Amino acid sequence: MRYNANGASVPETGGNTMKQSRRPSTKTRPPAASDDAAMLRKLATLVRYYILTMTTQAGSGHPTSSLSATELMVGLLFSGGFHYEVANPQNPNNDRLIFSKGHASPLLYALWAAAGVLKESDLATYRQFGSRLEGHPTSLFPYADAATGSLGQGLCIGVGMAINGKYLDRLPYRTHVLIGDSEMAEGSQWEAMQIAAHYKLDNLLGILDVNRLGQRGETMYGWDLAAYQKKVSAFGWETIVIDGHSLPEILSACEAARRVADRPTMIIARTVKGKGVSFLEDKEGWHGKTLNKTECEAALKELGEIDKSVRGEFSVPEARVPAEPARKSSGPVNYPAGKSVATRDAYGNALVRIFPAFPEIVSLDGEVSNSTKAATFKDAHPDRFFEMYIAEQNMISVAVGLACRGKLPFASTFAAFLTRAYDQIRMSPYSGANLKVVGSHAGVSIGQDGPSQMGLEDIAMFRAVLDSVVLYPCDAVSTERLVEAAAAHRGLVYIRTTREASPVIYGGDERFVIGGSKVLRKSDRDVATVVAAGVTVHEALAACDELKREGIAVRVVDLYSVKPLDEKTLRDAASATGRIITVEDHYPEGGIGEAVRSALGDLAAPVRILAVRRRPKSGKPEELLDYEEISRKAIIAEIRKLGN
Amino acid sequence: MRYNANGASVPETGGNTMKQSRRPSTKTRPPAASDDAAMLRKLATLVRYYILTMTTQAGSGHPTSSLSATELMVGLLFSGGFHYEVANPQNPNNDRLIFSKGHASPLLYALWAAAGVLKESDLATYRQFGSRLEGHPTSLFPYADAATGSLGQGLCIGVGMAINGKYLDRLPYRTHVLIGDSEMAEGSQWEAMQIAAHYKLDNLLGILDVNRLGQRGETMYGWDLAAYQKKVSAFGWETIVIDGHSLPEILSACEAARRVADRPTMIIARTVKGKGVSFLEDKEGWHGKTLNKTECEAALKELGEIDKSVRGEFSVPEARVPAEPARKSSGPVNYPAGKSVATRDAYGNALVRIFPAFPEIVSLDGEVSNSTKAATFKDAHPDRFFEMYIAEQNMISVAVGLACRGKLPFASTFAAFLTRAYDQIRMSPYSGANLKVVGSHAGVSIGQDGPSQMGLEDIAMFRAVLDSVVLYPCDAVSTERLVEAAAAHRGLVYIRTTREASPVIYGGDERFVIGGSKVLRKSDRDVATVVAAGVTVHEALAACDELKREGIAVRVVDLYSVKPLDEKTLRDAASATGRIITVEDHYPEGGIGEAVRSALGDLAAPVRILAVRRRPKSGKPEELLDYEEISRKAIIAEIRKLGN
Repeated sequence: MRYNANGASVPETGGNTMKQSRRPSTKTRPPAASDDAAMLRKLATLVRYYILTMTTQAGSGHPTSSLSATELMVGLLFSGGFHYEVANPQNPNNDRLIFSKGHASPLLYALWAAAGVLKESDLATYRQFGSRLEGHPTSLFPYADAATGSLGQGLCIGVGMAINGKYLDRLPYRTHVLIGDSEMAEGSQWEAMQIAAHYKLDNLLGILDVNRLGQRGETMYGWDLAAYQKKVSAFGWETIVIDGHSLPEILSACEAARRVADRPTMIIARTVKGKGVSFLEDKEGWHGKTLNKTECEAALKELGEIDKSVRGEFSVPEARVPAEPARKSSGPVNYPAGKSVATRDAYGNALVRIFPAFPEIVSLDGEVSNSTKAATFKDAHPDRFFEMYIAEQNMISVAVGLACRGKLPFASTFAAFLTRAYDQIRMSPYSGANLKVVGSHAGVSIGQDGPSQMGLEDIAMFRAVLDSVVLYPCDAVSTERLVEAAAAHRGLVYIRTTREASPVIYGGDERFVIGGSKVLRKSDRDVATVVAAGVTVHEALAACDELKREGIAVRVVDLYSVKPLDEKTLRDAASATGRIITVEDHYPEGGIGEAVRSALGDLAAPVRILAVRRRPKSGKPEELLDYEEISRKAIIAEIRKLGN
Repeated sequence: MRYNANGASVPETGGNTMKQSRRPSTKTRPPAASDDAAMLRKLATLVRYYILTMTTQAGSGHPTSSLSATELMVGLLFSGGFHYEVANPQNPNNDRLIFSKGHASPLLYALWAAAGVLKESDLATYRQFGSRLEGHPTSLFPYADAATGSLGQGLCIGVGMAINGKYLDRLPYRTHVLIGDSEMAEGSQWEAMQIAAHYKLDNLLGILDVNRLGQRGETMYGWDLAAYQKKVSAFGWETIVIDGHSLPEILSACEAARRVADRPTMIIARTVKGKGVSFLEDKEGWHGKTLNKTECEAALKELGEIDKSVRGEFSVPEARVPAEPARKSSGPVNYPAGKSVATRDAYGNALVRIFPAFPEIVSLDGEVSNSTKAATFKDAHPDRFFEMYIAEQNMISVAVGLACRGKLPFASTFAAFLTRAYDQIRMSPYSGANLKVVGSHAGVSIGQDGPSQMGLEDIAMFRAVLDSVVLYPCDAVSTERLVEAAAAHRGLVYIRTTREASPVIYGGDERFVIGGSKVLRKSDRDVATVVAAGVTVHEALAACDELKREGIAVRVVDLYSVKPLDEKTLRDAASATGRIITVEDHYPEGGIGEAVRSALGDLAAPVRILAVRRRPKSGKPEELLDYEEISRKAIIAEIRKLGN
């Protein structure tokens, strides 16, 4: 292991030499204490006091994981290099701080107490029901830049914020991410690493707290800092290896990181878990454990004198205002009735069409933009498109980071591959992220490529996420309008699109709303209602038309908004026609059929669910729709059965 | 970029020098053609012919991605170093071959045609409905060692197979994985890389086909082979950089890789997408596109003479027999009634108890074995436990690899973090994997840690997977019995466990079956049925007992098997009591309530779903159960509402 006692940067083997950053100095008012090592030591002691008392009072939490990073965070925040307007956490010029190791939340809250934002009485509510100070940070705490706690997401979110600073808002704020050593095992970290280097994010600083111990024992690399350095450096980052409890080394490293140009920097810090308390230091069995009152008193004694009056200060951020984009109205929607257009094509067209009205839009794609048709937007607005390559986890978290900085991200890939990012998707509401996700190539209707490429669980997956919206258009017009509705809605929206072309069935001025539906066929003699969405709408219409020729009337509902759904229309249909048949290109569990049953839960209308029930194969789309019994033939057969 | 023309290994910077492998030579019958470069060239030409004709006939597929790896695979398979009993794909001594770039399936099938396993008429069925030769390989094709097509999974599965060879079966077979350059962007690759190095898998060979072009353009690194080498080497692998169209270099690299000890090897090969056809070579816009008949004819002309009679041969594998473990019966289940035991504790106990009856069990955990209680098994059978660190995607795919080699893997982490591996989970049935997954810390009942740690989408997620089984025990006895049932069931089983302790309510001999349920309270005066599972069973019982004191009788069902579920009992209950109330510690969509509604779809019984509907917070478990209205209080209130 190699240390450099004076904290100067350690150039990586074979790496570039350090370049002068083009970022102007933003240090307009260095606080009096910035160079005062004694003051920083006092602050570190106060922070440790808060960590220990807060977790003992709560009876749960992660004190040892907080103690290891205390100097790192005190040095980063309170030595003059961190710019923040305390009264306005959303000031676009504020430096950002993400605790990717969210379980170190006691440290996070202690820091904001040391900055004067929280009182000791606030800290006493830590982990209590109703407190903003949750076990792991969420958007309830306005000074947490993102919700964390599922490891390996904070750096990805930080990449999104850094992309925003460098390429979109073009503001000199810097993004800092505190990373645990255990979470470096998550593949998402390396997705973030490669993209950060690819986009030359020299406004991004990772601080790796190598305290050696994970939850149940030593990490894969222990204190082998060289192993981390080699990997991080191979991924194109500047690396600085330090003793994470030496304030001079920390200050020097932070300063050096600010001078690095054209690449992100990782401070790799050797730390001691439980630092500052002899009986906790580097001890196994103390992860996520709190001290009882006696232990806490003993620990506090070891801290020495605690100056509760000391407060850390930030530097004042610049007062730049990001360019306010001109806002115009979206253009009209024009597709000739009957023309065959894939909804994925309409998605790309829609983004371009509505961009004047939603100039915050940013498009991200997982190296399939020619398939999802995000490429249409990319071609029109190359500066608002970011290629995320085949790394879906990072793509979603980058989108969360952009959303947290006021952008309107649309992240797209095949519906099947969004399963890769389910953890990131489920976490996004806890960050309050205004995230839009688009999954193309849904269902068996993609045909020959086979089951690996078929999104067949995506509706279930997105429906189960807190406060999500799930939209599934069947033609180009409804796609255009629903993309627009998604942009106007605040929160997570999923839009499911289809590979194959389908005929335009709506006029350009037709209105589509979240929670709505369309009754496409209706008579007062309907023997049943077929509820369909996406590709199956066209199957239902064909079935209806064929049955009509036989004198059998069937109601057809296009349930384009799967969550929330149009309960009234469904209940009216159930009352009028009695029987309901749902048809979906998705596995039955958690899909459209179950959603419809939920909406009718207290009604006595029987619901029959047609869905993908057999292991899908390669084949022609129409062969597969028949095989899975979700085609027009299957619908007709089902209706005929009812007749018996 | 650096090449070594003779194909000798390029030692990595700072890496170990190459060591002699301890693996004995298994080359018992080198085929006549092994050193015959002319023969290999003929085979490569034949393989190209098959690739082109098969994809043109199908009208879809990925010829150019197949052509780039043709020499790599012909050299690997047909030069004497690959051992395989063609008549018996499941011979445990066979070398394994995984196409992680599953879209190169035309190459895979062409190779098996060149080996004499498939006829040209078989290839003509490629991508046709009903053919074993699907668009991306699945278990329908017995020579595909795993289903691929979602990128970044093959190497992880290969790690599982290599772990099996080195540590479990202790057989000298080698595992080979063909990797695309685009998929190196997936974080799961780096999870596999680090674990492969950690476990010193010198029986694992990755072959990286660097053809520069992804789906929609150039990859992040193009032909910068040094960039790949630096990263792969930093992750602890031996690297060999070659020209991927030079058969001598390929043979030499494969031979060198077999000599590497104590670490896996990656052959990093510079290749040309579309190689062999002038108008396809290194051209954008040809990904996933087939040639029309005229183009195909022109392409075939460029191949020169095609010798359709030539056949590649493998070496004969050793005839070792893996030790057959003694099989005994499981011990009895003994928990005193009323004792408080967390179901996660019972899970650990169960694995130990049933191991004699299921000696194929292997336990994997994502660095939380002290929480999931996999540690109980680890302590008892350290040689059957593999620490996977915080890298859930790789953990699941390693389990798939172990399952494909006949093991019975139980992979565990927090239920919340299994969302990280949803893509790997949904893919597992297409590999036919006998996979068991255990998620602990389900629901808001974990309390103070907050929403990031709460599994609230896991039931929806697992229910939506093809042919899955979802089990959710409420006490120690049912956990023990359901773990046993999961082990006996072939296929994907998910078991959901709880953090907090709960009282034992079943006797040790109580029988639990997949698809079963328990009616815990029943009378002929029941005004409603409460269907619960896991923690809510205890809430339902408490509610029932309190209501009983008021003279209100309620039926209580423990729905421990959520999928498949006990339709008969539910329908009987619905008929008898009319109203059904479901209670679950999970979001409503895709959960237990919707599953129950599905089971009663054509019955007129109203179902009321109590589930987690508000954004969860930190707090005490009982506070959170009340807040979400899934506690005994909420159940009582609901029943009282019915009375009105």
